[in-house]
Amino acid sequence: MTADLFATHSDKLDAALTAIRERGYWSAYPESPSPRVWGETAAADGKAAFEAYHNGDFPLEGTERVATETSPFGVDLGIRYPHLDVDTLISRGQEALPAWRAATPQARAGVTLEILDRLAKNTFELANAVQFTTGQAFVMAFQAGTAHAFDRALEAVAYAYAEMTRHPATAEWEKPAGKGDPLRMTKTFHVVPRGLALVVGCNTFPTWNSYPGLFASLVTGNPVIVKPHPRAIAPLAITVRVAREVLAEAGFDPNLVQLAPEAPGEKLASVLATRPEVKIVDFTGSTEYGDWLEANATQAVVYTEKAGVNTIIIDSTDDFAGMCRNIAFTLSLYSGQMCTTSQNIYIPRDGISTPDGVKTFDEVAAGIAGATAKLTGDPARAVELIGAIVNDGVIGRLDLARKVGEVVLDSVAHTHPDFPDAVVRTPLIVKLDAADEDTYGTEWFGPISFLIATGGTTESVDLFAKTVEAKGALTAGVYSTDEDVLRVVEEASIEVGVHLSINLTGGVFVNQSAAYSDFHASGANRAANSALTDGAYVSNRFRIVQSRRHS
Amino acid sequence: MTADLFATHSDKLDAALTAIRERGYWSAYPESPSPRVWGETAAADGKAAFEAYHNGDFPLEGTERVATETSPFGVDLGIRYPHLDVDTLISRGQEALPAWRAATPQARAGVTLEILDRLAKNTFELANAVQFTTGQAFVMAFQAGTAHAFDRALEAVAYAYAEMTRHPATAEWEKPAGKGDPLRMTKTFHVVPRGLALVVGCNTFPTWNSYPGLFASLVTGNPVIVKPHPRAIAPLAITVRVAREVLAEAGFDPNLVQLAPEAPGEKLASVLATRPEVKIVDFTGSTEYGDWLEANATQAVVYTEKAGVNTIIIDSTDDFAGMCRNIAFTLSLYSGQMCTTSQNIYIPRDGISTPDGVKTFDEVAAGIAGATAKLTGDPARAVELIGAIVNDGVIGRLDLARKVGEVVLDSVAHTHPDFPDAVVRTPLIVKLDAADEDTYGTEWFGPISFLIATGGTTESVDLFAKTVEAKGALTAGVYSTDEDVLRVVEEASIEVGVHLSINLTGGVFVNQSAAYSDFHASGANRAANSALTDGAYVSNRFRIVQSRRHS
Repeated sequence: MTADLFATHSDKLDAALTAIRERGYWSAYPESPSPRVWGETAAADGKAAFEAYHNGDFPLEGTERVATETSPFGVDLGIRYPHLDVDTLISRGQEALPAWRAATPQARAGVTLEILDRLAKNTFELANAVQFTTGQAFVMAFQAGTAHAFDRALEAVAYAYAEMTRHPATAEWEKPAGKGDPLRMTKTFHVVPRGLALVVGCNTFPTWNSYPGLFASLVTGNPVIVKPHPRAIAPLAITVRVAREVLAEAGFDPNLVQLAPEAPGEKLASVLATRPEVKIVDFTGSTEYGDWLEANATQAVVYTEKAGVNTIIIDSTDDFAGMCRNIAFTLSLYSGQMCTTSQNIYIPRDGISTPDGVKTFDEVAAGIAGATAKLTGDPARAVELIGAIVNDGVIGRLDLARKVGEVVLDSVAHTHPDFPDAVVRTPLIVKLDAADEDTYGTEWFGPISFLIATGGTTESVDLFAKTVEAKGALTAGVYSTDEDVLRVVEEASIEVGVHLSINLTGGVFVNQSAAYSDFHASGANRAANSALTDGAYVSNRFRIVQSRRHS
Repeated sequence: MTADLFATHSDKLDAALTAIRERGYWSAYPESPSPRVWGETAAADGKAAFEAYHNGDFPLEGTERVATETSPFGVDLGIRYPHLDVDTLISRGQEALPAWRAATPQARAGVTLEILDRLAKNTFELANAVQFTTGQAFVMAFQAGTAHAFDRALEAVAYAYAEMTRHPATAEWEKPAGKGDPLRMTKTFHVVPRGLALVVGCNTFPTWNSYPGLFASLVTGNPVIVKPHPRAIAPLAITVRVAREVLAEAGFDPNLVQLAPEAPGEKLASVLATRPEVKIVDFTGSTEYGDWLEANATQAVVYTEKAGVNTIIIDSTDDFAGMCRNIAFTLSLYSGQMCTTSQNIYIPRDGISTPDGVKTFDEVAAGIAGATAKLTGDPARAVELIGAIVNDGVIGRLDLARKVGEVVLDSVAHTHPDFPDAVVRTPLIVKLDAADEDTYGTEWFGPISFLIATGGTTESVDLFAKTVEAKGALTAGVYSTDEDVLRVVEEASIEVGVHLSINLTGGVFVNQSAAYSDFHASGANRAANSALTDGAYVSNRFRIVQSRRHS
């Protein structure tokens, strides 16, 4: 059975292994929700499948139930998830471990790839779950929440598989011994998982951000406990349900993947993360809590993706309109509620050079604000890009941000044509000065960006480096027609360890990364202690234990 | 220059890359000190070169000097090493970083392999330095202290090189975009070191245990501060001197490798390890201090090799004499002062099956004791195997161990024929019962081993698992003619994460591991949090920072 699964999926795995080595474009999952790809009924079927969960017990076993989700679209979800106590979760995971450990890397890879394949068959259901728990518009939920999440998962499986199989399972060792017979030993190398793995999901990207850790831990032999964000359980509950089905069909204990939704106030992530049996923790979320995990879950290997202050430096451009459109899209997508959205945009106080001559600071500001207003002005079109606001904290922050400087573009409350209770807000753009470091020097999560007037690009680069050094960042962008400036900014980005996008004016955006090619986060600054996904992300999820004997 | 160095050494690097992939036998450095390999004068020249340092200023710059070494052979070393203050070490390392970071992985590999090559030209000098600081006999100091240490260093360089180059330096990404032109991006991937690296050396294996971390950190772009054990500075001082010479010749800042010997009571390792600029720490030594580093050097990635309780389970054998000889050699080599020496030997109270019928517990004990006495009875021959006692703590522990059970073989104080002041002790073997867990459940570093009577192999395996679970272990051995027993012991060794040697009766010993083939430590139990050397040991010593732009 598991041998069959590996054979079934080995072409895909080989292609992924090639992709992570070459880092060109590749994808294993269609990112278009078009009926031409999926058939006429797929969208409606997936929607119906998700809605069937509403106000009912989610089909996972358990007597006690929790229901903590509230949809940013104002839809009453009311899904009740099973709530297991911590000792049960731990002991079930531990019982499941030995047989999974004893399986080969190939067997585990076959099963995990089958899980992904099965999830891909539920793409629309999953996309609906992502949409209604995160506030993402449907197309984004479909792309980032399913296709791209599957790609990131497959990428993690490929890295982990490469790492597990970089050494042979057995080797013959023959050492010459002068005139006597050589010394001959047969060596066996076992891939041994660390123990139980915990994945702590986030509200905004429950699948995309959780899948790499989940699949990397699972394929390397670790039973995984999935602790979703209390407001974004459904996407991970569906994931766990599918994973358990596939595991059971393949003859393994379904408790290798368990869902652990928390009751209000339970602090379940902290309890689980510090249990001695838990040896791996993957977390996406706030810097404060990520730092806490790193300091306190000392019995585990902890992988965190936290927050930072993402930056764009504008020095000059040969495509002013393209630049403004590109930045506007980044600020608007999912109302700027991405850990990769640019917050600080540094612009020389004296303006920038463009093909139409120098544009003043205010003209640059007007260009970006105008492009953003154009993208988000019409409510019906806007909501398909900006989605809904994920929680009330964002609204409070918007109100506060309005008062910290001159508002260049105000945030507007739109009414969603389909969901009257959805909380929809367009981006707020505020003008600041380089001196206002107390304001722009920290993260303002949500559709809030600052255009910061600097004494010139040299100061822009200094402020960029200083802010990222202090707070970390996941993305940086630069616009310049001067290769010397680009070199200086690239040097600074290397120094502070943040990925840099240069002169984006078309269909690639600083806040998006492509699986198999772009690294998401670097692990080289405070915003994250690891990258999704590279060798370091997988190599410490298991150990090699060897035995040797005379041949 | 650096391109030349890479070309010079690329065949060796390729061979090492093949070796770590295939894990058969390979070595790049001759382990025999024979004049047939080295020429008639090499041994005397190396000895003279080392003795020229005695009672003088070691040729590294610095005004303040420290001299803290006392040789286990009773030789007056009196070598004075430069003592720099911490801020100077840190700032010099930081200044050296950018140009080294900007070099390619190939350039750095070329330089580090040239350092190894140059060290290999000083093999005899280095072997003398290892001998007289550690107490190892000369041949062992030559093999473990130079040839095998070079192999472990080359192995670490190979792993790190593979990891740095698993992604291309640049890649083209082309994503189809429906009917329009594809999206095309050029991506550049920079290998970015973490920052300053600290290597904390140990007294017993100053080169073998320090080289993997030193070379792995250096080749991945991190300036390295080498903090030797106060009693074993010379081997690392010679290493640092050679490294600095090669770096300077190659046009790099010699401060990429700095020596940081400590003044008495300075606690320099703790000061350096917790500096915010220090991002990597490699340590070999006590469990207590390794645990402290893991808990306190939280700004750094910390790799520790600590201590544990190494075990042999005797169930049955088809070569009783071979087994006894093999164990005797392990207990005797370097007076058992290896982190890999077996301490606990579990033997069924009712004896074991052998080709000559059942041997009682006491017969097995007598066999091991007799073989050990034979190896170590003649002082002149013994000292070439057991060397000298590294410090007074071992003597105190020997005295204590004599009283915890029935002495099967007493430790004898030999007079070294060449070094009358050398402190030489043969192995002590004490009989205990399974119930004496308070005694054998902790580490007794030195030539101290326990023969522990158990209710049978099942109990032996249980005690093995329990002790390793609690205290960790670097090695385990088993003797059995029953494949079912071997399977059970192998399962237990996987469960507690310790490498297992099965039925060693010839020229391979449980306390020795072969570079490129055997992993030293597993990182899967308390004795170490990493293995020398695997992917996990190198992959987090650098990060990838990328840039991308439209093609």
